[in-house]
Amino acid sequence: MQRNVRLLLAYDGTDFHGWQTQPGLRTVQSSLEEALQTVLRHPVNVIASGRTDAGVHAAGQVANVRTDATMEAQRLAHAINSRLPEDVTVLEATDVSHAFHATMSATSKEYCYRIHNSSARPIFGRNYVQHIWKTLDFERIQAGAAKFVGSHDFTAFATAGCVRETMVRTVLRCEAERRGCEIHIRVEGTGFLHKMVRIMVGTLVDIAKKRRDPDEIPAIIESKDRNNAGPTISGKGLCLEWVKYPAELLVPDSESSAPRSPDSEQVDPS
Amino acid sequence: MQRNVRLLLAYDGTDFHGWQTQPGLRTVQSSLEEALQTVLRHPVNVIASGRTDAGVHAAGQVANVRTDATMEAQRLAHAINSRLPEDVTVLEATDVSHAFHATMSATSKEYCYRIHNSSARPIFGRNYVQHIWKTLDFERIQAGAAKFVGSHDFTAFATAGCVRETMVRTVLRCEAERRGCEIHIRVEGTGFLHKMVRIMVGTLVDIAKKRRDPDEIPAIIESKDRNNAGPTISGKGLCLEWVKYPAELLVPDSESSAPRSPDSEQVDPS
Repeated sequence: MQRNVRLLLAYDGTDFHGWQTQPGLRTVQSSLEEALQTVLRHPVNVIASGRTDAGVHAAGQVANVRTDATMEAQRLAHAINSRLPEDVTVLEATDVSHAFHATMSATSKEYCYRIHNSSARPIFGRNYVQHIWKTLDFERIQAGAAKFVGSHDFTAFATAGCVRETMVRTVLRCEAERRGCEIHIRVEGTGFLHKMVRIMVGTLVDIAKKRRDPDEIPAIIESKDRNNAGPTISGKGLCLEWVKYPAELLVPDSESSAPRSPDSEQVDPS
Repeated sequence: MQRNVRLLLAYDGTDFHGWQTQPGLRTVQSSLEEALQTVLRHPVNVIASGRTDAGVHAAGQVANVRTDATMEAQRLAHAINSRLPEDVTVLEATDVSHAFHATMSATSKEYCYRIHNSSARPIFGRNYVQHIWKTLDFERIQAGAAKFVGSHDFTAFATAGCVRETMVRTVLRCEAERRGCEIHIRVEGTGFLHKMVRIMVGTLVDIAKKRRDPDEIPAIIESKDRNNAGPTISGKGLCLEWVKYPAELLVPDSESSAPRSPDSEQVDPS
């Protein structure tokens, strides 16, 4: 009987040409599919919550794969891990509903962008931060970040030429925090356009450098013109932190249709 | 007039064949001397507090270099940094006493060994930890660590064939701490024999795995036999944290001989 297995993944994007399989290039998808095919002994197609670009990291990427293999899910994770290179790992494998689709079922996800803001160069973990020598005005970043929250047409903050059915996305949270000499910008949203977070952060850095004003953001969004937003900042400071899904899709169909115990969380069956 | 400049250095040891210059190999010393020679325009010999092995990192290595160049010390640091590769940096450059010698003047130093103790493989910063899958008994590591404190002949904890004027070293502190799924073992000592910290940690891991008992350490030390200690653990979990020097050597001779202000720390002029 075919199962649907959800994979929780972490990877260091430094030496990958992003998520998506590309001929002749080392990508996360192809490394993962290669390991899975060896273990499952059939061709596989792994679907991720979204495609991360070259250099972008993931602490909690989610993917799913359909298979007839009967190996218990956590044993499957161990078997895949023993065949994966050291910069990508399966943190968890679980059986989920047939209706679960890593891309389509996602309800929200969080990215974190890390800026190393110091005259001293970063040495340890330098591939996970963007180094900005000049002191940034943290309060201006905070003020600008808050302006992104809400449902907007984010065309101005997407790669020119990025076309989707709708360019409207909802930013649920956009906050900056200081961590020693680092500034972390966390963005939670229902979905993101191509390079959207990196253009948002590039614009916030412009604001921090007083090249723009936090109050300009609504007008930039309104303009729907990529030329009005800031530059696309390097991918290496970006990390996909987690992806959320409806609870009822995260269990196998047999379990989800079984009677719930009285103390389990009630989910509206709409 | 010749000056003596102290350099505070950080480096990621992953891609270096250790500190010391070796023909045809990429080492910290040769990278640093190359950058310094370009800036100072004369051949230089950089002396470090100690030679770190291949893969070993440093957050606070100290070195010194003698030069006739008149460039202000902190500007010198910037000039060197602009010529150094991204995995090594000068954190600070200061003029110090002519009597300052990075190796000979050091009074104590601290190393930290990081173990990633989890069934999940480390992804971010995986080059700075040693991954041990099997759950280690933390209390046994703590009990064993305490047994190293004191002045002992550490022949049993040095590479076989390591010969020094004296094999006695003083461990001032040896403590283990938990940091999430990591175990950090910090060792402060007046000096260390070749691979001493890595053999100490290798022995503590044996103890944590119940292959040895914490109480065996005094007898292993007593035996002066390398065969009685545990294995040499990988260098990649090791980091030289800092090196201490007498305060009076950390200032230029002119300043140190100048009258002290009443609120400055009194240093015994012995």
